[in-house]
Amino acid sequence: MSDGSDLARGERHMRVVQLGVGSVGEVIARTLAAEPDVTEVVLADVDEGRVQEVAAKLPGGKASPRRLDARDPEALRETLRGAQLAVNALVPAFNIPVMEACLEVGVSYLDLAAGGPREIVGTPDMDEQFALDGAFRERGISALLFCGIDPGASDVFARALYDEMDTVERLIVYDGDNGWAEGYEFATSFSPAIMIEESLLLPPERFEDGRFLLSEPLTLSTEFDFPEPVGRLRVWHIDHEEPALMARFLADKGLRLATFYIALPDPWVELLRSWKRLGFAHKDEIEFAGCRFRPFDLLVSRLPRPVDLIGKLHGSVCVGTLAEGTVDGQRVRRFMYQVTSHDEAFARMGVQGTGLQTGIPAACGALMVLRGELPGPGVFAPEQLDPGTFLRLMTEHGAPWS
Amino acid sequence: MSDGSDLARGERHMRVVQLGVGSVGEVIARTLAAEPDVTEVVLADVDEGRVQEVAAKLPGGKASPRRLDARDPEALRETLRGAQLAVNALVPAFNIPVMEACLEVGVSYLDLAAGGPREIVGTPDMDEQFALDGAFRERGISALLFCGIDPGASDVFARALYDEMDTVERLIVYDGDNGWAEGYEFATSFSPAIMIEESLLLPPERFEDGRFLLSEPLTLSTEFDFPEPVGRLRVWHIDHEEPALMARFLADKGLRLATFYIALPDPWVELLRSWKRLGFAHKDEIEFAGCRFRPFDLLVSRLPRPVDLIGKLHGSVCVGTLAEGTVDGQRVRRFMYQVTSHDEAFARMGVQGTGLQTGIPAACGALMVLRGELPGPGVFAPEQLDPGTFLRLMTEHGAPWS
Repeated sequence: MSDGSDLARGERHMRVVQLGVGSVGEVIARTLAAEPDVTEVVLADVDEGRVQEVAAKLPGGKASPRRLDARDPEALRETLRGAQLAVNALVPAFNIPVMEACLEVGVSYLDLAAGGPREIVGTPDMDEQFALDGAFRERGISALLFCGIDPGASDVFARALYDEMDTVERLIVYDGDNGWAEGYEFATSFSPAIMIEESLLLPPERFEDGRFLLSEPLTLSTEFDFPEPVGRLRVWHIDHEEPALMARFLADKGLRLATFYIALPDPWVELLRSWKRLGFAHKDEIEFAGCRFRPFDLLVSRLPRPVDLIGKLHGSVCVGTLAEGTVDGQRVRRFMYQVTSHDEAFARMGVQGTGLQTGIPAACGALMVLRGELPGPGVFAPEQLDPGTFLRLMTEHGAPWS
Repeated sequence: MSDGSDLARGERHMRVVQLGVGSVGEVIARTLAAEPDVTEVVLADVDEGRVQEVAAKLPGGKASPRRLDARDPEALRETLRGAQLAVNALVPAFNIPVMEACLEVGVSYLDLAAGGPREIVGTPDMDEQFALDGAFRERGISALLFCGIDPGASDVFARALYDEMDTVERLIVYDGDNGWAEGYEFATSFSPAIMIEESLLLPPERFEDGRFLLSEPLTLSTEFDFPEPVGRLRVWHIDHEEPALMARFLADKGLRLATFYIALPDPWVELLRSWKRLGFAHKDEIEFAGCRFRPFDLLVSRLPRPVDLIGKLHGSVCVGTLAEGTVDGQRVRRFMYQVTSHDEAFARMGVQGTGLQTGIPAACGALMVLRGELPGPGVFAPEQLDPGTFLRLMTEHGAPWS
């Protein structure tokens, strides 16, 4: 990697490959393309129409639209060749294949979320990604994993709070959306398939007193007072990346609890609990009426996709991390968070709040990779970033935090 | 019809055809076969093994097992020929075909529940059945409609309360089951298909201030204190026969409200509301994964059948009618009800509570038809029975009321 001073002067060609140009991919691509030191953004997606649509929104000359089926390893390598960074906004099933392609062609890597566990959802989990650390070091390139809003900014918040406190016993991420969608009974603000996996299929994991504990999906809930305008919402413990990441990187000041809660609307909880009671909490096929299908796919087919909700979602989403511990012997309880309004996100980039709120931190992480602001080559979590730099970039790019 | 005195002396052959020998059919058949004046009970069902199983439980010589596919009109007529009464414990889709067969061969008729409305569930409604009144009169035979526990005993309770009060402004039927089933998340105590129709597909109808009003399914609920051991339960306004029947026959003392509420467990309400939110609140086919099927059938296939729950259901079920009005100028509020324990029902007849609680009143109604204790030939509702006779029979046959 060249250092930041070179880049800032625009002395070399800086090409980023944006893999996947859904809502989040679009926000990342547009945010990066607006940076003077980013000279080219390759927009790669299986949907060529969508690629052209996003390309038209990038500053003149910076977009390189490209149809790519990421399941084709050779096409993937070909797309990455000559770039400095691959931003993976595909589903987590592609994390390992894209990391491997990056290693082969020598391109740094960033993604947004972990998959797995392999035995339940069939996709690689975070350990498989961290296991590539040695290979990335040897190749002299970097990978920044799980760097959206949550995981991502939530982990940086945890790190920032960790740094300013003497002891940190509890780290709890809260994700709360008070939004509602015109004309839809259910509105998941990101992929319904991922949402079903996270909240129904996976037993949520938390770190408690030195051990990782699993619980039954949709059994642990409480209420949490999010900052206005979000307000008080019922939140549910679901499976997420942060407990494992915070326990891995932020346990040295007496951490006793690391967990994750998300606000789920009652109809969604009722739906998933009912689906489970029908015996459908799995991704297997069933036989019915002379045909075979996955109830999982049937359910997904009945839910709106995020793209269906664009412009129809109102309200705001808050993601934050609560740290409890001590400073100078005094007990403290600090909540660091980011709030995005769905309506403002739509006005600003034509996306809903979660798309903007996820894409901006990803772009900030991408800039840190591009500018050589990671600790070095290797595979990193957001907890390992310099929180000051990351948080400053978030504010500069319109995702202010408190 | 011969009169009761003949029958009581057993001076003629008295044959009843029991159509359908599920739980309720079995209770009716066994109760009738225990009567000295009933000399033969034809057990007719499409499931020959089940017919033999029930036949073995009837007093020696009284059971005539017969495999019958009731969709075959000639076989149906052949089965009915020579009987005094057909007790229809099939699904309501058979009500009109069986009534027509009864008219052709001159056999009286009793059933347990109405179908319809035709435009929503595709089965004949009660008006189509009452429209056969003239034909039954001409033929000199009787039909007693909707004579289980509810509708049935609930309507007789309403009539009894109506008779003892000077004004009756409100008649509300409450059906409450505090039962739970070992090993099952959902337990409908009767046909899950009927339960889905009643509580999800049909907009419930109530009689209010001279008009019939419809509401959205699963939107009106309240709590009701059932007598012990059932206790307080959340009850929901669903579609049922009684509001129309009570408005038709018991409106002359100032009736302003006739309605029906049933206790539904939260998981069942959550399931049906979720099913509706998925766009599945209908009986149409959908196309999915290259095949066509009815989501209705998929849902039914995942629910336990009543027969699956036999011996596994614990708790009690209470069905009663609340009448509000005046006696001698004083406001009164009277609740007449019947309570059956699932465990006692299992001990007594090997069925669950609702099977026993439905079958006994049906058998009582059947005895009144057989003994010429209806007002005459024609088609009748339970409201038109002499409540004293019916209630005495209920107590005598082990379904005491309070």
